[in-house]
Amino acid sequence: MELAGWQVSGKIDYDKLIDKFGCQRLDQSLIDRVHRLTGRPPHVFLRRGVFFAHRDFNEILDAYERGDKFYLYTGRGPSSEALHLGHLVPFMFTKYLQDAFKVPLVIQLTDDEKCMWKTLSVEESQRLARENAKDIIACGFDVTRTFIFSDFDYVGGAFYKNMVRVAKCVTYNKVVGIFGFTGEDHIGKVSFPPVQAVPSFPSSFPHLFSGKENLRCLIPCAIDQDPYFRMTRDVAPRIGYHKPALIESSFFPALQGDTGKMSASDPNSAIYVTDTPKEIKDKINRYAFTGGQDTKEKQMLYGANLEVDIPVKYLSFFLDDDAELDYIKQEYGSGRMLTFDVKKQLIEVLTELVERHKRARAAVTDEMVDAFMAVRPLPSMFS
Amino acid sequence: MELAGWQVSGKIDYDKLIDKFGCQRLDQSLIDRVHRLTGRPPHVFLRRGVFFAHRDFNEILDAYERGDKFYLYTGRGPSSEALHLGHLVPFMFTKYLQDAFKVPLVIQLTDDEKCMWKTLSVEESQRLARENAKDIIACGFDVTRTFIFSDFDYVGGAFYKNMVRVAKCVTYNKVVGIFGFTGEDHIGKVSFPPVQAVPSFPSSFPHLFSGKENLRCLIPCAIDQDPYFRMTRDVAPRIGYHKPALIESSFFPALQGDTGKMSASDPNSAIYVTDTPKEIKDKINRYAFTGGQDTKEKQMLYGANLEVDIPVKYLSFFLDDDAELDYIKQEYGSGRMLTFDVKKQLIEVLTELVERHKRARAAVTDEMVDAFMAVRPLPSMFS
Repeated sequence: MELAGWQVSGKIDYDKLIDKFGCQRLDQSLIDRVHRLTGRPPHVFLRRGVFFAHRDFNEILDAYERGDKFYLYTGRGPSSEALHLGHLVPFMFTKYLQDAFKVPLVIQLTDDEKCMWKTLSVEESQRLARENAKDIIACGFDVTRTFIFSDFDYVGGAFYKNMVRVAKCVTYNKVVGIFGFTGEDHIGKVSFPPVQAVPSFPSSFPHLFSGKENLRCLIPCAIDQDPYFRMTRDVAPRIGYHKPALIESSFFPALQGDTGKMSASDPNSAIYVTDTPKEIKDKINRYAFTGGQDTKEKQMLYGANLEVDIPVKYLSFFLDDDAELDYIKQEYGSGRMLTFDVKKQLIEVLTELVERHKRARAAVTDEMVDAFMAVRPLPSMFS
Repeated sequence: MELAGWQVSGKIDYDKLIDKFGCQRLDQSLIDRVHRLTGRPPHVFLRRGVFFAHRDFNEILDAYERGDKFYLYTGRGPSSEALHLGHLVPFMFTKYLQDAFKVPLVIQLTDDEKCMWKTLSVEESQRLARENAKDIIACGFDVTRTFIFSDFDYVGGAFYKNMVRVAKCVTYNKVVGIFGFTGEDHIGKVSFPPVQAVPSFPSSFPHLFSGKENLRCLIPCAIDQDPYFRMTRDVAPRIGYHKPALIESSFFPALQGDTGKMSASDPNSAIYVTDTPKEIKDKINRYAFTGGQDTKEKQMLYGANLEVDIPVKYLSFFLDDDAELDYIKQEYGSGRMLTFDVKKQLIEVLTELVERHKRARAAVTDEMVDAFMAVRPLPSMFS
C-alpha cells in the first residue's frame, strides 16, 4: 500500500530513514552470520547493501541457530503492467532466503486491494493475480514449500478471524496517520490494512501451520512498507502473536536516476520483463542516467561519478561477480572506461536476465499456477 | 448496528420517522394484497401495524404476482443475553413470511460484529452465535428453505467479493454520517457495514442462488435499520444488483413503557425467553407501566389510557384473537375492566408463549443447528 507522505523525490538518505523509522541497520556481522548459518555466500543483495535494514532479523537468526525454523511472507498487488526489474528484486531475494534457510513461504496477491484502489473489476483483478503469479513462479520458487494465494480466493475462516482481531486494535486515526486517508476515501481502503497484516500470523494458514502457531515470520520488503508493518508489529503481542521480523531493501532506481520514480505511465522509466533485447538496448542507451563525462576526453580526464551513475547502480544489483563489478567501477570511475562500454555490459547482463525470465515464464503452465495456489499442506516444510 | 443519533427516548412519532427516512407507509391496500396473494389471513403484526413501513414491498408483490419469487434476509448480532420478546418479533414475522410466500430465507449471525463491538473473543462470539441460532430455529423455521450462517464461518469467496464491491462505493464520511464513528473508533467498525449489506445480493450465496442472481430480496427489520439499508440500496444499482426491499417494524416497548428502552443491564425492563412463569408474573405485576387508574373507583370512573398501557400494547403483539383484544380494549378503556385483570390475561399469554418457546428450544439439537448452518443447496427453494 502507498504510505502517507511517502513521495520518492530527490535523493533518499537511507541513514535518516533508519533513524526516522527506528529500524536497525543490517550490518556486516549479521551478513557474516547468515553466511555461517546457511553455509552459502550471502546473496548479492545482502553483500551490496540492497537489503540494508531490518527489525528483529537477529532474533530470527537466534531462533534458527537454536533449531527453530521460521516462515517467509511477501506479496504483491497485481497490476496490469508487466513486472519491471524493481518488482523482481524482492522475489529474487525471497527465493534466495527460501533456498538458503529451507523454509516455507507464503506469497499474498492482493487482488482485493488493486480492485479497490484502481478502476479494476473483481474479475480483472483476479485474472491479473494469476498472470502475476506466473511471473513470480518464474523466479524459481519451490512448489513443495511455497503457497501463493489471492485474497479474493483465500480471505475467510481463520484468516478472516485474524483480520477482525487486528481491526479491533487499530483506530481510524492510526491508519490515517500511516496511509493519509481522507473522509472522501472509500471504506474499502480503511478496511484493507488488516488484510495485509494477517499473513504475518501462522494461524491465518491452518492448512500450513496447524500446531505451529508459534512459528516466527520474516517479511522481506522495500523499506517504504516499514510503517505499515510497524502497525502489524504493534498489534501482534496484543492478540497473542509474535511480532513479524522484517528485512528491508532500498528502492530500485528509475532509469532516469535516483531522483526519478519508475512509473507505469512512462514505460521508458524502467526495464520490463517483457522488453525485447532491442528495447532494453535502446532504453539503456537513451535513458539511463550517466555519471560519465560528456566527451571521451573529459571522461578520460575526470572519470565518472559512480554515485549517480545508473548503469553502475543496475550492475550492482544484477552483476553477481564482485571482482568484475569492482573492476568496472575502478576503471569507469578513473576514466579508463567509457560510458558506452559500461552500458554495453549492462545491456548484456539485463538482456540475459530478461530472456531467462521470459523462458522461465513461458514454461509456467496453468496447472503449475493451480499447484502453487492449491490450499494444501506443504510437503517440504523444513527440509 | 447502532445508528448515529439514534436514541430511543420519549415517545416516537412514527409518522415523522417515515417522512424523515423517506420510506413508505404499509397501508391497508398492501395488507389486503398480501392476504389475497398468500391466501392466508395477514399476520397479527401486519393487522395491528407492528410492521408499518416499507420500501418497494409493492414491487416484491408485483413480481410475486407475475410468478417471480424472492428471498428473505434477516439477521441478529449474537449476544450473551438471552433473547427477550422484542428479539423474537422479527423472527416470528419472518417465519410467517416464509410460510406464506414459500420462499428461501438467509439468516446472518454477525458474530464478527459482536466480537468487534463488545469485549468478546472470536471463540466466545462464535459460541453465542450457535446458542442464538437455537433460539432462532425454535421459532419454527423450515430447514429445507432456511440457511443460517455466522460471518466467522461464512465470509469469503463470493461473499467477500461483494463486500469489496460495496466498500468501493461507500466513503468514510458516508458511514460517519450513518453510524457516527469517530477517529478513535477502531477500523473494524468502519469495515463492517459491507458485511451486513451483502446478504441483500443473491450472488453472495452461490450454493443457494447460482443462476438466480436476479432474485429480489426482502428484508424484515426494525425501522432503526432503515438508514443502514438505505446505504445498501444506494450502492446496489451501482454494482449491478437489485435494491433490496424492506418491511419495517416499530419498536417493541420496554415494560416501563414507550419511553423506556429494554436493556441488558436491567433484566426487569423486558421479558426474556428464559424467564420462569413466576418471573413473568412478578415482572408484569411490578414493572409493566399501566394506563389504568390508581384505584378501582377511579378506574371504573375514568377508564384506562390505552395509548400508554403496556399490558394492552403487549397483548396487541401477542394476543392473536382480534375479537378478544377489542373486547379487552373496550372494557379496560371504559373502566369496566381493571388493570389487574388485563395483567392477568397478559401473564397467561406470555407464559404460554415463553413456555412454548422453551419446549421448542429444548428440542433443538446440535445436529439441527449443523443442518441449518450447512453450506448446501436448499431442497425446497420455492415449493
